[in-house]
Amino acid sequence: MAKKAPHRLYLTEEQIPTAWYNLRADMKEKPEPMLNPATGKPVSEEDLYPVFCKELAHQEMDNDTQYIEIPPEVLEMYKNYRPSPLCRAYNLEKALDTPAKIYYKFEGNNTSGSHKLNSAIPQAYYAKKQGLNGVTTETGAGQWGTALSEACCYFGLPLEVFMVKASYNQKPFRKAIMQTFGASVVASPSNTTNAGRAILADNPDNPGSLGCAISEAVERAVSGDNVKYVLGSVLNQVLLHQSIVGLESAKAMELLDEYPDVVVGCAGGGSNLGGLIAPFAKDKLQGKANPRLVAIEPASCPSLTRGRYAYDFCDTGKITPMAKMYTLGCTFTPSPIHAGGLRYHGMAPILSKLYHDGYMEAKAVVQTNVFEAATLFAKYESILPAPESAHAILGAIEEAKRCKEEGRSETILFGLTGTGFFDMLAYENYQAGNLNDYIPTDEELAVSMDRLPKIPGIQE
Amino acid sequence: MAKKAPHRLYLTEEQIPTAWYNLRADMKEKPEPMLNPATGKPVSEEDLYPVFCKELAHQEMDNDTQYIEIPPEVLEMYKNYRPSPLCRAYNLEKALDTPAKIYYKFEGNNTSGSHKLNSAIPQAYYAKKQGLNGVTTETGAGQWGTALSEACCYFGLPLEVFMVKASYNQKPFRKAIMQTFGASVVASPSNTTNAGRAILADNPDNPGSLGCAISEAVERAVSGDNVKYVLGSVLNQVLLHQSIVGLESAKAMELLDEYPDVVVGCAGGGSNLGGLIAPFAKDKLQGKANPRLVAIEPASCPSLTRGRYAYDFCDTGKITPMAKMYTLGCTFTPSPIHAGGLRYHGMAPILSKLYHDGYMEAKAVVQTNVFEAATLFAKYESILPAPESAHAILGAIEEAKRCKEEGRSETILFGLTGTGFFDMLAYENYQAGNLNDYIPTDEELAVSMDRLPKIPGIQE
Repeated sequence: MAKKAPHRLYLTEEQIPTAWYNLRADMKEKPEPMLNPATGKPVSEEDLYPVFCKELAHQEMDNDTQYIEIPPEVLEMYKNYRPSPLCRAYNLEKALDTPAKIYYKFEGNNTSGSHKLNSAIPQAYYAKKQGLNGVTTETGAGQWGTALSEACCYFGLPLEVFMVKASYNQKPFRKAIMQTFGASVVASPSNTTNAGRAILADNPDNPGSLGCAISEAVERAVSGDNVKYVLGSVLNQVLLHQSIVGLESAKAMELLDEYPDVVVGCAGGGSNLGGLIAPFAKDKLQGKANPRLVAIEPASCPSLTRGRYAYDFCDTGKITPMAKMYTLGCTFTPSPIHAGGLRYHGMAPILSKLYHDGYMEAKAVVQTNVFEAATLFAKYESILPAPESAHAILGAIEEAKRCKEEGRSETILFGLTGTGFFDMLAYENYQAGNLNDYIPTDEELAVSMDRLPKIPGIQE
Repeated sequence: MAKKAPHRLYLTEEQIPTAWYNLRADMKEKPEPMLNPATGKPVSEEDLYPVFCKELAHQEMDNDTQYIEIPPEVLEMYKNYRPSPLCRAYNLEKALDTPAKIYYKFEGNNTSGSHKLNSAIPQAYYAKKQGLNGVTTETGAGQWGTALSEACCYFGLPLEVFMVKASYNQKPFRKAIMQTFGASVVASPSNTTNAGRAILADNPDNPGSLGCAISEAVERAVSGDNVKYVLGSVLNQVLLHQSIVGLESAKAMELLDEYPDVVVGCAGGGSNLGGLIAPFAKDKLQGKANPRLVAIEPASCPSLTRGRYAYDFCDTGKITPMAKMYTLGCTFTPSPIHAGGLRYHGMAPILSKLYHDGYMEAKAVVQTNVFEAATLFAKYESILPAPESAHAILGAIEEAKRCKEEGRSETILFGLTGTGFFDMLAYENYQAGNLNDYIPTDEELAVSMDRLPKIPGIQE
C-alpha cells in the first residue's frame, strides 16, 4: 500500500547516491562498439585519449562495472543542488480528473536550469584531476554550456565554449551567465579554428550549427596544449552520470512504497532519459519488474520512431568515431523548432539498443501540443518548464488521459529536466500562434539516411 | 551543541508552518497608524475597502493577533514550492576562510524566482474568495508581477499588470512569463487611465516609473467593476505573509540546534527582510535572545541610513494613505541602479519602527561591491543570485570577514530572496565595468525630503 506522498519529496543529504549505476553491466546484449572511421575497427580506450580525458575514456568503454563510485569532490558539488525533489502532481491530476498518480523528478532547481549539471561536474572534475589546462565544448540552446561553466568555475578549470552563432546572438543572456562563471564564449563559426575559417570563407554570414560547433571544439581540443573535449549527451559516460536522476527517483519511490507502471522522458541525445530510466531498466532487464519505458521525441526530429538503427557519425563534421544508433543521418538538418536540446540526428547507443531490443517504446509529438501541455502544467504545478522537458509532460498527460479512459490507477513517473526561463521567445511564439508543426516527409528523411557511412563487411 | 548541517536542509511537508506570525502583536510600541491624507486622521479598516479586499484590509490593521491561520487552499499552493531550503554555505565559508557558520534561506526555487510568491498566493486567494472580478497591480523589475500572475492563474482570477514601460521594453521575457500565466500586461504610462493619459499628454515618450504604475493600477482598481489593487511589499499584510520565510528558517535552525547571532537581509520595501527576521525579532522583543538584525540597502537609495522617520505617501502619485516610515520623500527619484526591487523611497512601517527603536541595524552598500559578492557566491554555491539578494550576500560576507578578524565562530543567517536569470544585463554591465556607484549628496536628498507632507498637529 503506497504512502501519502508529499507534493515535493526531498531525500536527505545522506540518501544521495554515492555511486552511479552503469546500465550496460546488466544488458545481456551490449550496445555495439564504436568504430574508428579510418579503419572500420572498434575503438580502444587509448584511441579516445586524444579527445577525452583518461577516466572518462575508461567510463565510456566500461561495459562491466555495475556501480562506479562518485568521487567525494563531485558529491560535494552535487550537494549544492541535490537531492532534487520527486514531486507528486496533485494539482495536475485534479485538473485532468485522472485516476492515475503522476510523479515527476524535477532537475531544474539549479542555476544551469537543467539536469546537465549532473554530468558537467564529474567531467570537469576528472579533467582537473588529470591536470589538464582546460576543456572545450559546444553549446546550442545553452543549457550544457551553462552547466559546464558552473562546474569548471567551481573546480578552477578554464573552459572555452563554442556557441552556435544564431544562439549566441539570440540568447545573449545565456552567454552572460557562462561569462559570469568565467567561461570564454566564442560564436561559432569562428576564425579561431580551421573548421570555422573554412565555413566563414565560404559564407561570412553563416549562422552556425551544432555540428560545426562540435567540429570547432574538437579541433581545438586535439590541437590544444593539454586541452580535452567534453560533451553533454549521447555518450555512455554521460548516461552513467545521469543515472543519479533515476537512482534518486527509485529511492524516493521506494520510501513511498510506490513503483512506476510507466516512466516517461523526453529524448534528444538521450542524457536525461537514459539517466531517469536506468534503475527501472535494470529491474526490467533482470526480470524483477516490467515498467513501460517511453521516450518522447519531437516529430520534427524523429530519430527513434523514423530513423534507422545503423552506424553513423556523432557529429555533422564526421570527425568523431561512428556509433551504432537510431539515426536520421548525421547530415540531417532539423527544422528550427524551439526545443533546441532535442535537435539531434541520433540517439544514445545505450537507448538505441534498448529500443531495438524491445525494452523501450518511443512516440513523436508536435510542438504546438507540447507548448499546450507546458502551459497547462505551469498553471497547476507552478513551474515553467523548458520546451524540451515539456515533451515529457505531454507524454505523461497522454498516459494519464489513457488511464482515465481505461479506469486504471496507474503510477506515472516522468522527468522534468529543466526550466524555461531562457525560452520565453518560444512561449511568445506559441501564444501568438506562430509555431509550426512541421513533420518531415519520408522523402526528406531519406536524403540524409541514404547517405549513412559505408563500412565494408559491417554496413554496406 | 549544533548538529552537522546538510548543505541544503528541507523541512518535511508536515513541518511547513500552518499559521503566519504577526510581529506587531509582540511589539510593545506599535507602528504608527496610517493617516488619511484628506483628514489627517488614522484610517479605519473600512477606509481601505475601496482599494483592498476585506480580509487583507483586516490583516493590514490587525496589530493584536499573534498567529493567523494560513487557509488550506493557500497551503496547497505553497506546497508546490515550499518548504524552501535552509542552506549551509560550506563552500563559501571555505573560500572566505572564516570561522563563521553561514546559513541562507533560499527563496528562488520557484518560477517567479523570488519570495514574492509567498504573499501573491494569499492575496490572490482572498480576492478570489471575496468574489472579485480581478485584481490590478504594478511591477517594476517584474518579480512581483510574475509571482502574482502565477497565483492568479492558479486560482482562476483575472489580473491586469501595469509594468513600467522601460522594463516592459527591456525585459520582454518577464512580460512573456506573465502572459503565459494568463495575465494582461500593460506598459505604463498607458492610455487606459487618467493618470497615464495625463503623463502621456505631457510627454508621449515618458519611460514610466513605479510611482506612475502604482497610480494607474490603483485608479483602475477604484474605478473598476469589483476589482481591487494588490501590492507586493511595504504593507503590514505582506510582511505577515512573508513571515513564513522566517518561521521555516527558525524551525530548520532549531532542528540543527543552531541560533543566529546575526540575521542579514536586503531591504527595499522590506517584504523579505520583515518576513525573515520575524521570529528572531520576536525573541528579541520578548527578551529571549538578542540576535543582531541587519538591513542592507543600496547606497543609491538609502532610506534607512539617510532618510527621515516621518509620515509620507507610499506612492509618487500621492493617492495612497500616508505611513510613518523612514523615507527619502515620495518624490525621490533613485538613480537607475539595476537592483530594481530595492528602488523604493520608503521602508515598511514595521521595520521602520523596529529600526527607530533600536532593534535593527542598517547599512548601505554600493553596487559594484554587490556584484562582486554575487559572482563569488555563484562560483562557490552554484546559485546565480538576483542583484537584490546579492545585497544580503555582501552583508553576510562582510560579517564573516569580521568574524575572521575577531576570531569568532558566529552563526550568520541571511535571506537569499531570488535568482538573477532576468538580470543578466546588469551582470554584463558589471563584467564590462559599466556600473556606476553613484551616491546621492545630502543636498540631493534634501530636495525630496524637504517636501514631506505637512499634517497639522502631527508633522509641521
